[in-house]
Amino acid sequence: MMKPKRLLSLLLRLIAVGATLAAVIIMATSHEKGTFFAVSYEAKYTDTPAFKYFVIANAIVTVYGFLVLFHPPGSPLWRLVLALDLVFTMLLISSISAALAVAQVGKNGNSRAGWLPVCGQVTKYCNQVTGALVAGLIALITYIILLLHSIYTFLNPLLEKA
Amino acid sequence: MMKPKRLLSLLLRLIAVGATLAAVIIMATSHEKGTFFAVSYEAKYTDTPAFKYFVIANAIVTVYGFLVLFHPPGSPLWRLVLALDLVFTMLLISSISAALAVAQVGKNGNSRAGWLPVCGQVTKYCNQVTGALVAGLIALITYIILLLHSIYTFLNPLLEKA
Repeated sequence: MMKPKRLLSLLLRLIAVGATLAAVIIMATSHEKGTFFAVSYEAKYTDTPAFKYFVIANAIVTVYGFLVLFHPPGSPLWRLVLALDLVFTMLLISSISAALAVAQVGKNGNSRAGWLPVCGQVTKYCNQVTGALVAGLIALITYIILLLHSIYTFLNPLLEKA
Repeated sequence: MMKPKRLLSLLLRLIAVGATLAAVIIMATSHEKGTFFAVSYEAKYTDTPAFKYFVIANAIVTVYGFLVLFHPPGSPLWRLVLALDLVFTMLLISSISAALAVAQVGKNGNSRAGWLPVCGQVTKYCNQVTGALVAGLIALITYIILLLHSIYTFLNPLLEKA
């Protein structure tokens, strides 16, 4: 039988892998043909560097999360996993912030810079980007919980002995 | 006499406070009158939510960094400082990523979305935003070094005892 703590941690890691994978798939499949000033164009995530960064970062975190699932419990490498969790949480924060900032311009535009909002023309594309960002946020929250849990279980026995 | 380690940590914290303060001042004072399609306008950081977030985040981290400077060494609260360092490093990463993503659109535009680059019209403004981002990056690197240093000095005695 698995310990409840280990089971909870495994469940959280499964959710995290699912969420980052969903973020990659939803963002990568987002495209829609729109018309802008009578010019037809196709909105794709590759048009926006911030969205490309989001896909790459989430793909990296998915691969990492998947590999950690098969990591045996009680291995001395868990200290490394704690450090890597931290690094990949920072990568997620960075990619979500960047994608969110550009998505905000896409939704509301920036009148001072003369950037018009595009979500009116490509509603489906915008909804998909929003979905990907929500999936990314779920992954981020899961990783932060995992991080707090790891720090607690890792530090607690050390603190008791100290 | 201060210990060399403590002196180094204090020096790093001074650099971090200076860098975040510089980021706030440079970004907050950035404004330039430009002409866009014969319409005169003034580019300011308040036009862009991501830049406002950058200024607020850096201001918060400046205040925190300043307060920590006066924190007595050997206090039991240093464990809290380590946790807060982590939180504020994440805040810095997030704000810099968001500002960088929008600054990239400002510099290169996004032809698919019909967003024209604005740096040709407001070069001085763009240079100041770039300066603020560089200051923010310096602060971020300093905080990451501080974090690694804190984790090392905090965990080392515990690991030896364990």
